[in-house]
Formats: sequence, structure tokens, C-alpha cells
Amino acid sequence: MAQNVAQKLIASHLLDGEMTPGEEIALRIDQTLTQDATGTLVMLELEAMELDRVKTEISAQYVDHNLIQEDNKNPDDHLFLQSACERFGVYYSRPGNGISHAVHMERFGRPGKTLLGSDSHTPAGGSMGMLAIGAGGLEVAMAMAGEPLYTKMPKVFGIKLTGELPDWVSAKDVILEMLRRHGVSGGVGKIIEYYGPGLENLEAMDRHVIANMGAELGATTTVFPADAEIKRFLKSQDREDEYEELVADEDCEYDEHDEIDLSTLVPLIAKPTSPGNVVPVEEVAGDELYQAYIGSSANPGYRDFAVTAEMVRGREVSKHVSFDVNPSSRAMLQTLARDNLLGPLIASGARLHQAGCNGCIGMGQAPAYKRNSLRTTPRNFPGRSGTKEDSVFLCSPETATASALMGKITDPRTLDFEYPKVKNPDDPVVNDKMLEEPLPIEEARKVELVKGPNIKSLPDFDGIPDEFELPVLLKVGDDISTDEIMRAGAEVLPFRSNIPAIAEFVYDGVDEDYPDRAKDTGDHAIIGGSNYGQGSSREHAAIAPRYLGLRVVIAKDYARIHWQNLVNFGVLPLTFANEDDLDNLKQGTKLKITGLHEALAAGDSVEVETEDGATISCKHALSERQIEILRAGGLINWKRDQG
Amino acid sequence: MAQNVAQKLIASHLLDGEMTPGEEIALRIDQTLTQDATGTLVMLELEAMELDRVKTEISAQYVDHNLIQEDNKNPDDHLFLQSACERFGVYYSRPGNGISHAVHMERFGRPGKTLLGSDSHTPAGGSMGMLAIGAGGLEVAMAMAGEPLYTKMPKVFGIKLTGELPDWVSAKDVILEMLRRHGVSGGVGKIIEYYGPGLENLEAMDRHVIANMGAELGATTTVFPADAEIKRFLKSQDREDEYEELVADEDCEYDEHDEIDLSTLVPLIAKPTSPGNVVPVEEVAGDELYQAYIGSSANPGYRDFAVTAEMVRGREVSKHVSFDVNPSSRAMLQTLARDNLLGPLIASGARLHQAGCNGCIGMGQAPAYKRNSLRTTPRNFPGRSGTKEDSVFLCSPETATASALMGKITDPRTLDFEYPKVKNPDDPVVNDKMLEEPLPIEEARKVELVKGPNIKSLPDFDGIPDEFELPVLLKVGDDISTDEIMRAGAEVLPFRSNIPAIAEFVYDGVDEDYPDRAKDTGDHAIIGGSNYGQGSSREHAAIAPRYLGLRVVIAKDYARIHWQNLVNFGVLPLTFANEDDLDNLKQGTKLKITGLHEALAAGDSVEVETEDGATISCKHALSERQIEILRAGGLINWKRDQG
Repeated sequence: MAQNVAQKLIASHLLDGEMTPGEEIALRIDQTLTQDATGTLVMLELEAMELDRVKTEISAQYVDHNLIQEDNKNPDDHLFLQSACERFGVYYSRPGNGISHAVHMERFGRPGKTLLGSDSHTPAGGSMGMLAIGAGGLEVAMAMAGEPLYTKMPKVFGIKLTGELPDWVSAKDVILEMLRRHGVSGGVGKIIEYYGPGLENLEAMDRHVIANMGAELGATTTVFPADAEIKRFLKSQDREDEYEELVADEDCEYDEHDEIDLSTLVPLIAKPTSPGNVVPVEEVAGDELYQAYIGSSANPGYRDFAVTAEMVRGREVSKHVSFDVNPSSRAMLQTLARDNLLGPLIASGARLHQAGCNGCIGMGQAPAYKRNSLRTTPRNFPGRSGTKEDSVFLCSPETATASALMGKITDPRTLDFEYPKVKNPDDPVVNDKMLEEPLPIEEARKVELVKGPNIKSLPDFDGIPDEFELPVLLKVGDDISTDEIMRAGAEVLPFRSNIPAIAEFVYDGVDEDYPDRAKDTGDHAIIGGSNYGQGSSREHAAIAPRYLGLRVVIAKDYARIHWQNLVNFGVLPLTFANEDDLDNLKQGTKLKITGLHEALAAGDSVEVETEDGATISCKHALSERQIEILRAGGLINWKRDQG
Repeated sequence: MAQNVAQKLIASHLLDGEMTPGEEIALRIDQTLTQDATGTLVMLELEAMELDRVKTEISAQYVDHNLIQEDNKNPDDHLFLQSACERFGVYYSRPGNGISHAVHMERFGRPGKTLLGSDSHTPAGGSMGMLAIGAGGLEVAMAMAGEPLYTKMPKVFGIKLTGELPDWVSAKDVILEMLRRHGVSGGVGKIIEYYGPGLENLEAMDRHVIANMGAELGATTTVFPADAEIKRFLKSQDREDEYEELVADEDCEYDEHDEIDLSTLVPLIAKPTSPGNVVPVEEVAGDELYQAYIGSSANPGYRDFAVTAEMVRGREVSKHVSFDVNPSSRAMLQTLARDNLLGPLIASGARLHQAGCNGCIGMGQAPAYKRNSLRTTPRNFPGRSGTKEDSVFLCSPETATASALMGKITDPRTLDFEYPKVKNPDDPVVNDKMLEEPLPIEEARKVELVKGPNIKSLPDFDGIPDEFELPVLLKVGDDISTDEIMRAGAEVLPFRSNIPAIAEFVYDGVDEDYPDRAKDTGDHAIIGGSNYGQGSSREHAAIAPRYLGLRVVIAKDYARIHWQNLVNFGVLPLTFANEDDLDNLKQGTKLKITGLHEALAAGDSVEVETEDGATISCKHALSERQIEILRAGGLINWKRDQG
């Protein structure tokens, strides 16, 4: 049967399941990518699994998020990651080497491979014919340990590109057009696949822009074919031998379809506070701005910086604009220096920052109160910039730079000079000196993990007992989010690698005594309503309560990811067979469960007795594998015990 | 009488007093310099004075400290400063334009002038024959408003330089040698003046290094002559017409004297945790390091970066070293780009940061826990790097770079390549696009100050009444420091421009209810022991309690600067005529003072009655001018009322 690129990638990695949209499939993972904000926990998980060496073809760890070092925590994390990479056989990209997505594509991206990354913009790798998917840390850790990725077979959404982009319009406007048409959930449950004659005019790094921000459509991932342009790109990276053509079969089909004539596009901009809030730039032209921000994984190419440099050459940005330039990688910065493009940027008034994610994830460069900031970054959710009352617009480098020059939001087509067309060079600087290769295994085995005072090994959890008594330590209502269970923010995030410390914050906005009660009590249960654990997928919302002694949750129903996280960290999630029983359970009630192991194995029912002799009938939805995981004390133990 | 350079500078600006060491003198101030961390309060003080326009020849405001923008507070401060500069006729150096001291020297430094700056490294300007002194914010604000600087006539400490520096030894080693010989208080009460044939081999920016770190000797300031090298320097900055020779008379004398033969110097390093802890590098060679840090106002010259770039050209820094390069100014960065020196830096593994103070003042780049950091910055006080348990060494760019290459502390003389001698160029890039000129006065008068939500005008204080009753709201012991009255730190510092908000922290480590009691009570008194207000000179320790209603302090005696700050912000500082009375005053006691104005005018005694009828005899040490200031409600009102 004729296949599209997405189907070919999945078929070649399918370990289990049917390629029918919505069905669970298991995929072999060839490569993984972790960044520092999620990577420290991944490495602690590998340590807890007692992994000897990663089983992927390539695993790479990047330090690009937490580059601002205000105390020892971030540099300590960097040293920990470096030692963990040496220990487990992972490439280590040092702080300052650049943003994971751009560097990974340049140095490791390979057509036909699968890539799993603990960063939501991992799909950028799809720009060169890879299947690149973002996931939670533990899923990536499991992939590093050789486990398949379990996911639902997505639909494939084909986008035919025709025509050629007009002057002043670039790849960012293509993905903004997609967001304008389809909104921030237009890609949910889908792989977006671009094809057609319009591709001829989109270089590899332009495709990266489009694939990267496919995440904003909610897509599982985005794929492009591996064609002559990808061959050129790999050659420019001295990796032509890794090229392999991967294009859709002529008669292939797509589950959904759309078409964009590139020649009809105009400069677009996403207004605050959603990437889906897209309008033509001319609609908001004239508004003042505080900041124009160049860089991030959503515009990481040489072209993006070079066109910026050419636009400001011999000119001066408005005195009212902070013009922040964030190189995507060290090699790119070196290429700009070689090609005499840094001078014009600096001369025009740019604040040149170190290579990394920086302000894109709120690490510096926050805008002034309620002042407009034009950014080439992928997201403008409220407060993401660091400023609570921010006003962030997403646009192309052309639009951001035109606006910096004019001191007001400006459609670049209205500038009084010609469009400086720039192509990516065929001979960029290739420099892997800050990208350390894995150690040979014998040397690796001798490496000790370097742990600063804020980095603690994961606690070891025991398997779920067959019989236990435990009090209801907390009873909460409907729609409890993982933010309520384990909030984020500057006060809490530095303790991400320190479960005992971060556990002090569990449920602190709901019931601030809960951590203390839990520490006094030990094993306990929590009773919830419906949609328990909605929101962010953060694993800490399961690990930290488990650390405090949480063994069982009984709720009306669960948000899918948190339910899975509870199981993965050894907490038994039950639902009420009869929801009226919820009213009979008070905070403080003692519960008793006996013969649990047999009950789990025998079917989907578990009986819970209360201290006053009542029986609460509960249900579970665990697979056989998940029962094993619970009995092992969580996925990490389960994997470790497999050896 | 033959005069040295220091004496000539003082004599030409003397408005009052005798040039006898220890005597109070009043000096005319030609130029002022403020940076953003101190400048916001200075601008609020000018606003409160209702100043129309600065009265100095040149006042310049730099944004170089708070460049990390994690929320809106810092960018809001930048916009406020920009508007205040426009309003008051001050040059505004935008964020990213560079470090105050280097930029000021290059663009405004002028032999024969006086410079007062609200930054302790202001003496760097002495490198070109200026009298450049650091002071508190209000003193600089007063200078901007045309008031003289009152200070004690320092001794002049002459240092004769002979010989020429050997290879691998540079200006930093000269000032480290001074610190090795004389320690961190070797310059207290002195102006250090360098002269002699050794100067021929020290370029202007090398002298800047030495003058800058004279602050670490505790010196009032450092001066160098304005000679042919300064003429060359000014010419390179297109300002040859501002050159004026200023050299010591042949037979001049110095109050103290020392001599350094430059040819005998070796690479030196200040070990943790004091700039005075100096040893030869070879004594600590071999120790591992986490970080090598290039930049700061203590090594800001093109030469410092160029020698670094030449040393790493074609080489690679150790994979265990974070090699942080901090350009001192935009123009310098542009010159490095022009001269193809950025490429080698980036290629070798440098993390290239934006131009500014950055890690020198703990704004990023903090080292890992207990790991060695080699820095070309001026200070290594414990914790200043941001990491509480830090280990910071101070050294030359040559030593820091050699150590980065070798991955251990390295005497650069032991490297296996030749010393790349570099001179500062005669044609550096001059670029004032980010240095905004003052507006014409008519335009300036129309400018409104731009205040983000965290910037509040200074509260208006009324003059001290003739008669009042007020309770003792707090009684404290001996040696209360300004850190106890008003602590620093990341929680408190962001409220520096917001007196109502920062007042919530007054005395919070001593008696956390004090702010609430004061707000309930209004006017009140505080009773202290001896050495009241010791430590940091921070003005907030006087303004914030005054805001809470503090009108009178009675103590055994005072630290000098805090005593002056109390007066400057309208609080009456009294001492006990009979110290036994201290025991009779309890917290809560009500005090009554009547006929205060007459008593202050009549002599040095003030009688205070207690609610139980006792009389406490007190003394004051106010000058006539200070009595006027108190009656006006503080120095700002006093100056405003003068019109």
C-alpha cells in the first residue's frame, strides 16, 4: 500500500499494535534528546534503574534552559549532567553550545530515525524526515533504557505546499498561517506532514521552524520528507553519508488535508496571549514596542540571524526598543562571526546574549510592565516571559527587526529598502568541541555521579502491599490540577532534583499542613472527585506525594496522564464503583484493604473497608503490565528488576 | 609650592576648607556617574528636590548592573531611568552599552575634572588625571543639583613605578602587588598617586585596571597623570581636543611613599575570600577550577580581551571549565568583531555574554558549590558571586585564560607557547548610538517620568516639630548594623525604588512587628546603645524607618555615616548626656520634647521628659546647616526649598 512519510517512519519502527488511528502502538526509539530542565530527573531515574548504559543509537543531553546562574544550583546541575552523561554513555552538550533542537538536528538528525525528547519542541527534528516526539522525562528515561514508546496511532494531516514565499515573508509566517487556520488544537492526535512543490523553496532550517511550532497546533509531531535539500543540509554538516531519501509514495493518502499557496502569504503575527491568535502584521502596525527578540528554537537558523543583520546593517534600532539577539548555537555564532555579520548586529544596538533558550522560557529578557514585546519564539502564553502582565507577540525575524528599527510594530513590506535575501551557507562552521562524546564503557563504569548539595538520588519505593490500613489524609473536590498538587514557579523549581525538598510544597495552596501530617503518618490515602490530576503532565505531582507516603487515591475519575504517572510511581489509583460512597469518606477515616494482589489479578474490583465496618467497592483500570509495575513499586523498580 | 597631581586636582576645585590631611574640604564636582542599581533612588531624589536640570558639566546614567530581566522590575527601572535622564538633562547609556567606568572614561573622561559616582569603582576615572570618587546616592544627587562634595582631605600616597612588565604579567598584577603589600585597608584616608618612568609602559586602560581596584585598598581614590598616553587615548576616542596635560611638579612631595619595579613582578592571584589575600599564582598552581571569568570594570580594555582571544586561538578550553567572557562595552565588542577576535573566543568554547557587570556583582554566572572560580573581577568577598559557599580567585586575564586552557590553576609563564603581546588599537570603534544625549531644556521639561508599578516617588517628609509626644517603639542594644535595620538580599533589593514596600522589612530580623506597630502609631522614637547604625552606608536604613514615623533616635553613640543619613532624611539623632538614663527608658515609654527649635539653636543640649515626669538630658552634634536640614524635613526638602 502506498504510504506517506509518517506511515513509513512508524511502520519501520512498529514493535506492537496496528497502524489504525486511535489504536495503541509501540515504537522502537533510535535517539533521545534531553535538556537540562528535564534531564536531571531523567538521569536520576536512570540511576535508580541501575542502568549500565543507554540502549539507544544516540542519546544526547543539552544544557540550554537554566543558563542563568544566580547561585550554585544551576551550575551544580550542569556538573551532575556532565557526570551522568559520562556514566551512562550519553552525548553532553555543554552550556553555551546551543539550543537542543537546532544542535541535535545539525549534528545527529538522520532521516528515517525516531527521536524521543523530554522537551515539547522535539518535533523540530521532523524537518529532516525523522519521527520526533516530545514526552515526559520518565518516558524518555525508559526509551534510553531500551523500552519502546507506547502511544496512540495518530491521524496524518497532509499539507500541500505550492508556490514560493514573497519577499519579507518567511517560514515563521507559514506556521503562523497554519495556526491562523487551525488554531492551537488543530493538530491534536495528528502528525502533520508537509509535501508538494512549495518545499523546493524551504531550506532545512526553514522546515525546522515549521516543525518546531507544530507543537503549538497540539500535534503529536510534524514530518517533512528527506529530499535533496536535506542531502545538501547533511553535506553542509559533513554528514552526507547519513543521508537516506525518505519521501511519500506517489499515491499515498492522508487522513486529513489542507493546502497552502506560499505566494499568497503575508507577514503574520500572533497577538497576546496565544500562538493561535494570528492576524496580519498590518492589522497591529503602529503600536509601540519595548522589545524585539531574535532567536529561540522557533527561528534558529543562520538565515534568521543573517537577514536580521543585513536589515540593521548601517542602521540603528529605535532608542525605545531593547533589541535582544539570542544565538541558537555556538557554531552558528561562530559562522556569523566568520561572515562578518556580528558587527552590524552589535553596531545597530543589539544586546547579544549567550547561545541558549534564554528569554524564550522566561530565563531573562522579561519585558517591561504591559509593554509590547515582539518575539521570534514559539509561545506567548501569559506570564511565560517572566513578566506577569506581559504583552508578547510572535512573528518572523523580518517583522521583529523591522519593528525594532521603526520603534513601532511594522509590516516589513513597508520598509524603504530592499529585502536582503539570505540563504543558509553550504559551509557553516562545524564545531563539536563543546559536544562531548560518550566514554568507552569500561571508563564510563568508573564514573561517579557529581551531586551538588541540592541533588538527591530518587527515593526507593517499595511495592504495593497485599494488605494495609491507612487513613484518608486529604479529601479534595473535582478538577484538582497537578498545579494544585505540585506547583511550579521560581520558589519550587530549583528543587526539581531534590524530591525530599520539593515534597514540602505538595498541595500547599490547598492544605498547607498536608506534608507535615503525611510525614507524621506515613502510608495514607487521598480522596478526590472527578478529573483528578488535570493539567500539566509533571511527574513530580506523583513522585512527591508518593515520597510523603501516598499509596492509594480513590477518585470519581482521573486525567489520563496523571493516572499514568501515579501508576508509574507506585500509587494505586482507584475509582468508586458507586460515586455516592464519596460522601461516606471523611478526611481522617481509616481504610483497610486486604488480599489486594489477588483482587488486582482477578479482575477490575477492589473492596475497601472503613474503620466503622462499611465496605466501599472500587474499580481499577490497570493492565497486567501495570499491575506488575505497582507490585514492583513503580516503573523504575520494574525496569531495574528486569535487569 | 610644588604639587602632586592629587593636590592640583583638589586645589583647582576647592570651595572651602584647608588642604591639610584630615580637615573637611568642600569640592566642586564637574561630572557625575550613576549606575542603575543606585541610580533609580538618585533620580527619585532629584524628583523630590523638584530639580529642573542637573547643574554639572556632565552627568551620565549607565544601565550595567541589573541586566538580567526575570520579571518586569528591572526593565521598568530601565525605562524609568531613561525618562528621568530625559527630564533632568542626563546622558543615558542603554542596557547593553557597557560598564559605566569603561564607557565613562572613553566617552567623557577629561583630565583635570572631578567625577563623583554612586559606585565604589568610580576611582577608575583617576586613570586619566581626574579626581574620581565614589559616594552614596544622595551625595551624588546633591552634586547633580550643584552642591559641593564635603569630604576630609586625604593624605597622598605616592607610588613610583619603574621598569617594564615581563611577558605574561599585566596591569592586574600591579594592583594585586599593591594589595599584597598594603592589604585591604592600606589606602584608607589616602589618594594613591602613581608616577615614574614605569608609566611609559602602561596604557590608559591598564591604568584603569589599577585605579579601579584601588577601591580594594580602601583608598579615597587613585590618580594617574594625564600624559602623552592619555593624549593618545583621547585621540583614539576622537576627543584629542579635550586633552590637557596634568602632571606632578618636579619637586612635589607625598605624605607616604612606595616604589614598584614592574620588571620584578610575577603573575599574582588573590585567594578566597579577600582581594588582599594575594600570593604568586605558582603557589596555587595545579588546583582544579570550575570557571574562568573574563571581563568586568577591573579588566575592561580591548587588550584584556584580545590577549585572551590570541591565547585561545586554535585551542580549546578544558571541558571541565565554564569559560565566561563578559565584554565591557558595546564599542569594545564591535572592535573585537571588526578585528576578527570574536571567532577564536567562541571557537575555543567561550560563553559570550552581553556587555555589562554581570557576574561581577552576582548577576548570573555563579560558580558551582565550593568549586574554584578564577575571575578578572575586583572582588571576591564570600558569596558575592551568588553562590554562598563559593571559592573565587582574582587574577589577570592571562592567568584566567591559561587556567581555562589547562583545566587547572596555571601560571601563564608555564604555557608552551609565546606570549601574544597585544596593544590597544589607535582606532577603536567609537559608537555612541546607545548613549543618548540630554534633551534641550524646553523639551526636557515636558518629559514625564515613566514609573512601572514598583517605582514610587519618595514620600514627602515634614520638618521636625518644635514640640511633640512620641512613644519609644523599639529599644535595641549595642552595635546595631544597617543590615539589621534594613537588610539587603534578593527578597528586599527589588524594592529599592519603592519606599512603602521596602519599609515592610525594616528591623525584621530584630523585631518583626516593628513595621506594623509603627504604622499603627505614627511618630515614634527608637532607643539604641553604642555604635548605632554601623556597617553599610545604605540610605534606606534611614529613609524607610523615617517613612514609618521615626522622628528621634537616642543612643549612646553612632556610626558616622548612619548618623549623617538620619539627619539627611530628617530624623533627630540624640545621645545621652548621662548613659545611665538608657536603663530608665523602656520600650513603650512615652517621651515629650518641647521648645526643640530653640534648644537646637541655643546649644548642644535637648531635654526629653518621660511620661512619669523624669527628665533625660540629651546632646546633639548638629551643625547650623544640619539644624536647617532637620527643620526642613531633610536634605532633599532643604535643597528643594533653596530652589
